[in-house]
Amino acid sequence: MNYEKLFADRTKNMGANIIREILKVVSQPGMISLAGGIPAPQSIPLDLIQELTSTVLKKYGARALQYDLTEGFIPLREALVPYLANKGIHTTVPEVCISSGSQGVLDALGKVLISPGDEIAVEAPTYLGAISAFNPYGPKYVCIDMDEEGIIPEALEKVIATHNIKFVYLVPTFQNPTGRSLSLARRHIIAEIIAKNDLLLIEDDPYSDLRYRGEPLPTFYSLIPGHVLYTTTLSKVFAPGLRIGIYIGPEPVRKWLILAKQGIDLHSSTFNQALAAEYVLGGYLQKQIPKIVSLYKPRQEAMLKAMDQFFPASYKYSKPEGGMFIWAEGPQEDDTEKLYWKCVERKAAYVPGKFFFPNPGQGLATMRLNYTMSNEDEIEKAIQIIADVLKEGL
Amino acid sequence: MNYEKLFADRTKNMGANIIREILKVVSQPGMISLAGGIPAPQSIPLDLIQELTSTVLKKYGARALQYDLTEGFIPLREALVPYLANKGIHTTVPEVCISSGSQGVLDALGKVLISPGDEIAVEAPTYLGAISAFNPYGPKYVCIDMDEEGIIPEALEKVIATHNIKFVYLVPTFQNPTGRSLSLARRHIIAEIIAKNDLLLIEDDPYSDLRYRGEPLPTFYSLIPGHVLYTTTLSKVFAPGLRIGIYIGPEPVRKWLILAKQGIDLHSSTFNQALAAEYVLGGYLQKQIPKIVSLYKPRQEAMLKAMDQFFPASYKYSKPEGGMFIWAEGPQEDDTEKLYWKCVERKAAYVPGKFFFPNPGQGLATMRLNYTMSNEDEIEKAIQIIADVLKEGL
Repeated sequence: MNYEKLFADRTKNMGANIIREILKVVSQPGMISLAGGIPAPQSIPLDLIQELTSTVLKKYGARALQYDLTEGFIPLREALVPYLANKGIHTTVPEVCISSGSQGVLDALGKVLISPGDEIAVEAPTYLGAISAFNPYGPKYVCIDMDEEGIIPEALEKVIATHNIKFVYLVPTFQNPTGRSLSLARRHIIAEIIAKNDLLLIEDDPYSDLRYRGEPLPTFYSLIPGHVLYTTTLSKVFAPGLRIGIYIGPEPVRKWLILAKQGIDLHSSTFNQALAAEYVLGGYLQKQIPKIVSLYKPRQEAMLKAMDQFFPASYKYSKPEGGMFIWAEGPQEDDTEKLYWKCVERKAAYVPGKFFFPNPGQGLATMRLNYTMSNEDEIEKAIQIIADVLKEGL
Repeated sequence: MNYEKLFADRTKNMGANIIREILKVVSQPGMISLAGGIPAPQSIPLDLIQELTSTVLKKYGARALQYDLTEGFIPLREALVPYLANKGIHTTVPEVCISSGSQGVLDALGKVLISPGDEIAVEAPTYLGAISAFNPYGPKYVCIDMDEEGIIPEALEKVIATHNIKFVYLVPTFQNPTGRSLSLARRHIIAEIIAKNDLLLIEDDPYSDLRYRGEPLPTFYSLIPGHVLYTTTLSKVFAPGLRIGIYIGPEPVRKWLILAKQGIDLHSSTFNQALAAEYVLGGYLQKQIPKIVSLYKPRQEAMLKAMDQFFPASYKYSKPEGGMFIWAEGPQEDDTEKLYWKCVERKAAYVPGKFFFPNPGQGLATMRLNYTMSNEDEIEKAIQIIADVLKEGL
């Protein structure tokens, strides 16, 4: 049959993910990939799963495998309240809701908030998963300029003054792709700007538990709760394959997100939520975080050391206090997409940074480097290969 | 802050679920609810979960808890090919994809296919989960008249001739809410109509494994594969809380569904898909289906027997060969929503049928009765209460 006539107008906003195409080569044998964005298999507490399963079956029985509330499994939401309080997020059980990964709430937010043509303000570069969640709903992206300390408050003010912004989307801590964090001073200034302009901020916070140095920073949710839809995930501190996202926010927004989620997937896996509840309640989460930190910290240090040693002096890069990524920027004439293919020939891969900018033509000389999926030796070797290619040029 | 200004135009299509409101009372102590639509806890193979978990951890290790393909976990898709072949659905691994419950693929279909104002043809009454998945995308519903054998072919032809139908959505076997199945003869006629008009049919098939009598009927997918997006679920034959839906369909449609799913939830739970893979591979699914049938069959018989004995002669009802529901229709003057409250006072509940009709004013004298969640004695007692109320009137 003729399938082309079937598709909705919005599919034109849903172009194939070019990044996936160029990253297909990274699974070639012998490749050291710094292109990934996923947790190390060793960070997943595999030896706990059997025990957690046994506890879940004893404690909840068939309830753990049955249909459940769209808002989320109550024992998990109860367990999360003190965990979040430890992070300075003071909330209550009805306010904590569960999504199918944070991707799930980003999609629901798009559905509930974005009419075609609505303008939303994002970091440049920004998190690609948010873009792919929002795109089908037809927004226009207005980019907020960043420096090493995250978005620049004056740039945000200018964006607000010159556009009709529906909401602001930020990853304020150890951002994907840059690893950057908004400084404490900037957080206070930006919180004030958001509140003064009666705006909603979507605060996406998947990485803040992965801190290797420095002091924890307050969430925007703790500063201006009425203006923030906060989302985090257990994907980096338990297991991504369980697809557990968490969100907290003002009741009028939450109410619509829950209604939207009824139509999207009814609810997230009850069984996985029950496993997560026991993971948090049993104190395992609090014990796992330092283990993950001690796995990733030396990997990050190895990467930074190798970059200091091998990278051309014309390259600047971030030295983030945590997270999963380092962001590097070369001289304007460097085309990191072209250089990517030369690196791949020599069996090392990264992500060319231009793919993280919503508007084309930006970030042509940038790259994202991930250090969670390789060990220290591999990291050193890959950085050396990439550095050689950068020095040689095309 | 002022939250009202935030919401997208499409939220007006996402009205609160009135059914949920009126069903809140069914959890009162002592209530016998025939209002549910969920599997019996006893149908869930709870004693297998520990063993399946152990197999999954041994066989797949961290892979079962890691990020995975949007299309679905390959070992599950491999295991499903012979299971589906047993049902007369001959397909291949790349064609079988996994969604987060069948709700997940209904939402993705809405996103990929429906532009606001598009006309889609549905049974009247129809499955409410499909309506709540499609509504945010702004379709118009065109209803196809039904009788005891399912939709009437002439009614479908008339709908196609008088409207610009984007796709047809049907639950052809043991439909929710009516329990009705399209007869073999009608399937062939309807398949021909669909193909002749170059239409896409969404065939939603969650119940066909729950057959208590009679011969299996062919799926539309097996009759006109190029015209069918087929979806089924493990929710009724394994565990709903694992949220495993399955879909198969033409490559051009599947390609967009996968792209949409990347933005919706990246992928469904890897761990649950691995449990499902081992459930199918170990032969447990094929052993569980007869156990579920032998649990539900006497419950359905008890309900039909009690209805024969107690229901007023003015009520007609279906005698389905399987599934989870019986549909009853009274004389035009009966208002089953008003009668519902009188039944609830006497501690028996059903769903007033009008809620299953996309257009208001239809089905005022109808009701849906579920027999999977109560035992035979409870069913007899509840039917007697409902029958008394129907006879007494308001």
